[in-house]
Amino acid sequence: MKLIAAKSILKANDQLAVENRQRFDAAGVFCVNMVGSPGCGKTTLLEALFSHLRGSLRLAVIEGDIAGSIDAERMEALGVPVVQINTEGACHLDANMTASAVAQLDLTDVDLLIIENVGNLVCTAGFDLGEHLRIVVLGATEGDDKAVKYPAIFQGSNALVISKTDMLPYTNFSIPRITADMKRLAPDAPVFQVAALKREGTPKLAEWIAEEKTKR
Amino acid sequence: MKLIAAKSILKANDQLAVENRQRFDAAGVFCVNMVGSPGCGKTTLLEALFSHLRGSLRLAVIEGDIAGSIDAERMEALGVPVVQINTEGACHLDANMTASAVAQLDLTDVDLLIIENVGNLVCTAGFDLGEHLRIVVLGATEGDDKAVKYPAIFQGSNALVISKTDMLPYTNFSIPRITADMKRLAPDAPVFQVAALKREGTPKLAEWIAEEKTKR
Repeated sequence: MKLIAAKSILKANDQLAVENRQRFDAAGVFCVNMVGSPGCGKTTLLEALFSHLRGSLRLAVIEGDIAGSIDAERMEALGVPVVQINTEGACHLDANMTASAVAQLDLTDVDLLIIENVGNLVCTAGFDLGEHLRIVVLGATEGDDKAVKYPAIFQGSNALVISKTDMLPYTNFSIPRITADMKRLAPDAPVFQVAALKREGTPKLAEWIAEEKTKR
Repeated sequence: MKLIAAKSILKANDQLAVENRQRFDAAGVFCVNMVGSPGCGKTTLLEALFSHLRGSLRLAVIEGDIAGSIDAERMEALGVPVVQINTEGACHLDANMTASAVAQLDLTDVDLLIIENVGNLVCTAGFDLGEHLRIVVLGATEGDDKAVKYPAIFQGSNALVISKTDMLPYTNFSIPRITADMKRLAPDAPVFQVAALKREGTPKLAEWIAEEKTKR
């Protein structure tokens, strides 16, 4: 009997991810993979980033969802080119799905491509999509123990965004604790604090993403 | 080449789940599988349920986490018999892991076994652990669109608990909207509203679980 080992599937994914990244580089597209739990505020953060960056960068979005197109409709309402991937049950995007979605976009019209991954703090960690940056979003309402409990995704991210900081007064969430945990898991990753609905902290994050793009 | 189809793995899991359930029934143990996103408040809800039920039912807990033992330590501090499962990366518990954990408990001392699954609104949906009830927990801070975006887990649950309702005034979460979505996906499942830290709504949920146990 032959087995398909999970490792070889991941290897195939990694190879496809490299090809995606080469395609982005050739087209001058900077790609961000945004991950986080369901309801951590990824789409609201995307709306904020678009409002800050629209004057300087041409944005496009890939929305990964198990079902429906609620998030894609929100981005479309702002006039952002958007491709919806319905994973039909799958718990994360992979490089192959990403390539299919990218084929629906005209990359010559795009400077910054943000992929909003399926809401999942676990399974999204293992799949490189070909992005240049992975940003993990954690709501201040989700508890400050999450980096300890879900280390892989924090370890593999280039930045941590603590969202919903306007809720901090009503929680026991400790910014110093999560910052220390992130420092241990990903020493070089900056930590941002945002309240995206109020556009607090989001200009600084937008600026950082734009700066990271110039380094490519 | 032979393939191991996901379907056959699920079938094996279902068979093991049946065996777990038979074991629970033989021992007079009522088993609840609690699922929800990371940080939706499952452990705090467990603490509240224990405080309400400790006088009438002997509780035991299985904690499923990818890494660490933070949640198990919280339950142990209350004097609850607890087994920690570290999935070492796996994104959900399965019936086999559950059976291993159950083997560590003396079921003759247990009336109610609550399994706190890995924080994941996606992958936990597909795996019967042998429970009698599955309860899905959704934080009022996570957004009211989650049943539409992650339908499988809501569809397969026997009750919806909306947690963190003390945060409702600071969100745009609509109780009528999520209740209508749940009604559509799982018509017989009651919807509870709780603020577990303040023990609001949790006595009613505890009462319901105790009542469901008497039906077995």
